Amino acid sequence: MKDPIGIFDSGIGGLTVVKELIKLLPDENLIYFGDTARIPYGTKSKRLIQQYALEDANFLLQYNIKLLVVACNSASSLALSVLQESLDIPVIGVVIPGAQAAVDLSKNKRIGVIGTTATINSGAYSAQIKRLTPDAKVIGQPCPLLVPLVEEGWLDDYVTQLTLKKYLHDMMREDIDTLILGCTHYPLLEPAIRKVVGSEKHLIDSGRETAKAVKEVLMKEDMLNLKGKTIQNKFFVSDIQEKFAEVGSRFLGQPLQNIERIDFEQFLIQLGTNVPCAENLGKE
Amino acid sequence: MKDPIGIFDSGIGGLTVVKELIKLLPDENLIYFGDTARIPYGTKSKRLIQQYALEDANFLLQYNIKLLVVACNSASSLALSVLQESLDIPVIGVVIPGAQAAVDLSKNKRIGVIGTTATINSGAYSAQIKRLTPDAKVIGQPCPLLVPLVEEGWLDDYVTQLTLKKYLHDMMREDIDTLILGCTHYPLLEPAIRKVVGSEKHLIDSGRETAKAVKEVLMKEDMLNLKGKTIQNKFFVSDIQEKFAEVGSRFLGQPLQNIERIDFEQFLIQLGTNVPCAENLGKE
Repeated sequence: MKDPIGIFDSGIGGLTVVKELIKLLPDENLIYFGDTARIPYGTKSKRLIQQYALEDANFLLQYNIKLLVVACNSASSLALSVLQESLDIPVIGVVIPGAQAAVDLSKNKRIGVIGTTATINSGAYSAQIKRLTPDAKVIGQPCPLLVPLVEEGWLDDYVTQLTLKKYLHDMMREDIDTLILGCTHYPLLEPAIRKVVGSEKHLIDSGRETAKAVKEVLMKEDMLNLKGKTIQNKFFVSDIQEKFAEVGSRFLGQPLQNIERIDFEQFLIQLGTNVPCAENLGKE
Repeated sequence: MKDPIGIFDSGIGGLTVVKELIKLLPDENLIYFGDTARIPYGTKSKRLIQQYALEDANFLLQYNIKLLVVACNSASSLALSVLQESLDIPVIGVVIPGAQAAVDLSKNKRIGVIGTTATINSGAYSAQIKRLTPDAKVIGQPCPLLVPLVEEGWLDDYVTQLTLKKYLHDMMREDIDTLILGCTHYPLLEPAIRKVVGSEKHLIDSGRETAKAVKEVLMKEDMLNLKGKTIQNKFFVSDIQEKFAEVGSRFLGQPLQNIERIDFEQFLIQLGTNVPCAENLGKE
């Protein structure tokens, strides 16, 4: 099945997931949307994140995608079920694969999770881990400064070390043996995080785990592309700022090519009355 | 003239300007719009910032405002002339008043400016200072981590001190005697900045200077409200997250009341074809 896989993120952090998909599924066609005009999502409300996620998915559906990857932890935490209810294709977020890997690796079932404020406050990782292992102890910590630190490029700076020490201080006293990097920006901080947590703890990169989950679903549903790539991977973004290509290439681990800026507002206006009504979202 | 003054910002940082307006012009009616659904602006492109600024202005025009304050340094730096060309009412940004105050106070005409990446890269403060004093030396420094640090509430943290030292290091060797706080978030960091730059340097709070400029224009144009307040100040935002009231009150210096969340996307869809076409923006 040569239809592409659609991937969206609030920005370019989701390229860490694309990097793993390219490694694991080199024959698949990929269409990416990074909502750089409205980045970040992780500081915004549940209702707004759900609305944005539905709009992003609608944008990708134009390209006849066979499967949707929510490569954004905030959207995966708060909008996965809304997306799954609305869409007729498989939808895979980063939370469930990350939680599964943590449970598989942890021996003492004491698991830490770091992420944006939206991700941690949603309790999504904790709920998922406890569904798998009810007696697990999950310690979550919102780390809103880590995304800006990555985007500033201070990957191994003294300021980043101190910020990590501060955020991880309480968690380190909880005897966790596994830490989930619950934001697609965080794999770039892995060496810095390693310095703070030591060499013994398992670090879970949700992006890598998600690529594995995508492969499993495609195999199970007989949807793998067996004919080899038919299009070049395509990257859409809603804004391009100066350092875009530089930052994007850092995430992707290779030069970022075939990028197109789209006017997302015009897309929404065209979508018009089909825009999911925000009034119905964010209520539980 | 009892028509309200309209004020917009990318979020709630502009409340530092509102605080000064309330002090200086207590009889004026104020209508504020904080675009918290799309915050921040300072990391985004010129073209997008101009588009957002026009949309924000259009939202406030519905309330029959007599004057528009662009209480956002990024929008003031990149979109002031676009707004002035499009609107029939006076438009006041924060850059010109801040630059004027710096030139008035500086003795050696060596002036530092800190702000978002968009503000500093625009060169708007530098151009304005040199228009007033052609032989001035202006040293700009983008400080993208300061907004997240303020929003995290780490106003006097060791991490904030170190970040400021790093950002201001080169500037401190340039013998500046005046530093412009070119972002509405920064007045909250004034004590922390003071520790890094010492007690001798002039710190310019653009928000305070802007309130003075608004008063001057209203007096000159005979537009002051002489009848006393007729409405309670009103605050619109495009998203409300959990810590909103807490952070907003910190900016305003008093409890934030009379807030209404609006669905800005629905407003844009209604505005429809009247939305300024982004294709014509950002080109010089």
